[in-house]
Amino acid sequence: MANLQRKVYLISDSTGITLEKLTHSLLSQFPQVDFTIMTHRYVDSKSKIELLRDQIQSTSLQDPLQPLVFTSLLNESHRRILMVTGVQFFDVFDFFMDKLNLALDLTSVPVSGLSHAVSDEHQYESRIDAINFSLRSDDGMHTEQYTQADVIIMGVSRTGKTPTCLYLAMNYGVLAANYPLTEEDWNKSAIPEVIIQHKNKCFGLTIDAEHLTRIRSKRFANSDYASLKQCQRELSYANRLFAENNIPYLDTSTTSIEELATSIISKKKLTDKT
Amino acid sequence: MANLQRKVYLISDSTGITLEKLTHSLLSQFPQVDFTIMTHRYVDSKSKIELLRDQIQSTSLQDPLQPLVFTSLLNESHRRILMVTGVQFFDVFDFFMDKLNLALDLTSVPVSGLSHAVSDEHQYESRIDAINFSLRSDDGMHTEQYTQADVIIMGVSRTGKTPTCLYLAMNYGVLAANYPLTEEDWNKSAIPEVIIQHKNKCFGLTIDAEHLTRIRSKRFANSDYASLKQCQRELSYANRLFAENNIPYLDTSTTSIEELATSIISKKKLTDKT
Repeated sequence: MANLQRKVYLISDSTGITLEKLTHSLLSQFPQVDFTIMTHRYVDSKSKIELLRDQIQSTSLQDPLQPLVFTSLLNESHRRILMVTGVQFFDVFDFFMDKLNLALDLTSVPVSGLSHAVSDEHQYESRIDAINFSLRSDDGMHTEQYTQADVIIMGVSRTGKTPTCLYLAMNYGVLAANYPLTEEDWNKSAIPEVIIQHKNKCFGLTIDAEHLTRIRSKRFANSDYASLKQCQRELSYANRLFAENNIPYLDTSTTSIEELATSIISKKKLTDKT
Repeated sequence: MANLQRKVYLISDSTGITLEKLTHSLLSQFPQVDFTIMTHRYVDSKSKIELLRDQIQSTSLQDPLQPLVFTSLLNESHRRILMVTGVQFFDVFDFFMDKLNLALDLTSVPVSGLSHAVSDEHQYESRIDAINFSLRSDDGMHTEQYTQADVIIMGVSRTGKTPTCLYLAMNYGVLAANYPLTEEDWNKSAIPEVIIQHKNKCFGLTIDAEHLTRIRSKRFANSDYASLKQCQRELSYANRLFAENNIPYLDTSTTSIEELATSIISKKKLTDKT
């Protein structure tokens, strides 16, 4: 069966991030359709809206299928300009805001882009500080910082420790350090010294050995480091270490950064500081 | 006026990220209310849902104001369990999916958590590669990588270059390098050599001098580096460099990482690779 095609316009008066996330969630429920998504951000004036409306209308004349138009515009008159015939119009705010106004018995204060603006300087700096903390304590550096850490991610090389830490820092202001499990550690067959005193902050990442070989080969092809045998050896050490020390862990082979980060937040009961 | 208080439950069968973003956008329109948000992720079984329902009901008995319950549960019977009296219930999928099914004349394929799962290994690795690219080319390192870069962020120390690059990499798979403007460069009074050949990829960050002093003082209090005079001197050089070379730039003083990243995507017409 040939894939169905469909044009999708995302139109925001601000960053468009909420709209992207929501639309992606919704459209992923229709895997049989091949969506072409066009995001238009900072569409915040009447003239920009009118230009975009004309563009959408002239494109849709050549397409037998009506394009989907998702918006998160706070200005009602701007929304009305886009509600043209020939498109399927979805507004994120329209539906929920009416219900929310009723539920709260209040009237909203429409301020465009508020949700991703710097609303609180302290919170903003706590995210930047968390990112810097992650970078400073990346890959086993500055272990003296572990007293401040909210979580210490452990795993062998190339299991996704750094991206997971950065995601936690950027999105939740969590102080996430990461510690690489290396040959040096597993010769001792015990939990690394530096970890013992912070064991309750530890979280492990593991991965399928074949998958790890592929990832490492991209970096150093035909090396010992990337060989299946070496990957198996390191992973069996790491997995045993997690199990013997009751360190919770996740397999990153088929898990996204988002899933890793939010699972760690749930399992370690970390607080969102943003 | 005392702030109004309201409890909010976010309940997802998956990462809860879409729900967090949407709810945050919606609730930020009611700055007069002090919301207490409790996120419950990976609530994916009947027993977990029932436990949570009981918890919400018993808490709401002590509160004269009904809690708001936002869900993004794909399982309809799970949603029904939560639609209890005494709460204001908002379901993200319910409303949009019906409209989408009609618009597309198709039936959705409910797969929980699809939106943040690893749907495509190539896309997943391109994000990880982009993060590694950003880290390798952070702070003016490995300028020989600039041929591959999608964008090169420039600015004096502590203007938010690194977080912006990491955000672009993590969320859009954009290859973002960053180059610090230092004393060494401005003594030459021309655009740094290494930048000239990639001038069309450059984007500048600037900041208010007082703000920069505060940020730098947190790192090195009472230093020359953090002094207002030094900050003014560096910023006046950087701003002149951007203007004289037609390098687009943004002021990060009151701009969030999200706003910086999405503005750069818009202004430089970068492609979302995820």
